[in-house]
Amino acid sequence: MHDPKPALDFWYEFASTYSYPAAMRIEALAAARGVAVRWRPFLLGPLFAEQGWRDSPFNIYPVKGRYMWRDLARVCESLGLPLIRPEPFPQNTLLAARVALALPEAERAAFSRAVYAAEFGQGRAVSEPAVVAELIGAGAEATLARAQSPDNKAALKAAGEQAKALGLPGAPCCVTASGEIFWGNDRLEQAVEWALRG
Amino acid sequence: MHDPKPALDFWYEFASTYSYPAAMRIEALAAARGVAVRWRPFLLGPLFAEQGWRDSPFNIYPVKGRYMWRDLARVCESLGLPLIRPEPFPQNTLLAARVALALPEAERAAFSRAVYAAEFGQGRAVSEPAVVAELIGAGAEATLARAQSPDNKAALKAAGEQAKALGLPGAPCCVTASGEIFWGNDRLEQAVEWALRG
Repeated sequence: MHDPKPALDFWYEFASTYSYPAAMRIEALAAARGVAVRWRPFLLGPLFAEQGWRDSPFNIYPVKGRYMWRDLARVCESLGLPLIRPEPFPQNTLLAARVALALPEAERAAFSRAVYAAEFGQGRAVSEPAVVAELIGAGAEATLARAQSPDNKAALKAAGEQAKALGLPGAPCCVTASGEIFWGNDRLEQAVEWALRG
Repeated sequence: MHDPKPALDFWYEFASTYSYPAAMRIEALAAARGVAVRWRPFLLGPLFAEQGWRDSPFNIYPVKGRYMWRDLARVCESLGLPLIRPEPFPQNTLLAARVALALPEAERAAFSRAVYAAEFGQGRAVSEPAVVAELIGAGAEATLARAQSPDNKAALKAAGEQAKALGLPGAPCCVTASGEIFWGNDRLEQAVEWALRG
């Protein structure tokens, strides 16, 4: 018997701006400390709707939005990541999220990074099925069919319900086995250290 | 002729939770890099009112609020700062802000830290004039009179207008001479480095 490898759940939404740098660096960061990352795509829309928001809070509150885009530019610059704002913002990320969930876990991280790189690194419209298919690559047709299956749709809804039950305030969030929530690209390092506490 | 010492404006609101750890560490952080800090008290209320908020967003959005208190507890623990939530939250900080502004700059930082330590370190009601007077210490009566003078009231209002014109999304914010805004206790280090760029 040995202790299982420490792990954390990385909850992300493809429309979430700060999920972009977080997704690009979480894997290497966690691996360096021997922590496994479970990629948990979900939709913020239903959670935001409960707060009365029908749009990104960064659009609803323009002062906050202006600050966010400037801050994100500085964050991306410091990480060497390109940043191009997709139009419209936010993109509709339902299909991309369904695909991410439908993929085997071994392929989910790479697909998710590809979506973020296209969306925020190149400003592409990841709401378009053709773009999503291109990002899937080989076997796109079968994956898209699996993504749109009733079981997979239900699984994404269930993920959203779990995110709500956990009390996630936004995305990205890292959640440890002990239930600690760390919100934002700024909290990845702390989340990884917390996961090591067991 | 020599270049003036690099400086940054530290904009804070006494009711702002993350302004507490920021206020407790900004001075030492900046001094270690040779950066001067100008303490700029202001009120978030008028800015929030423009967003349609009549209360702290941490009260309006309880999921966000629950996360914030847990996150703040972790932040304070990591800094060795005590944390006791004042009741009610947020405190009415109008008088404390007026006093901070009325004080000579040389005394403003120490008074401000004393307010935060009482409010969030001990959970005291800094909305109470008697508590504010105690925190001023010697000369409290004269300082309170100056704080409530029409000129000083107008100066605090003007500070709020300036905060709005700058586009501050909340508190605390560090603003460099070049107009870069850094929001949050998480951005102090970056703000100080930016101030050094001139």
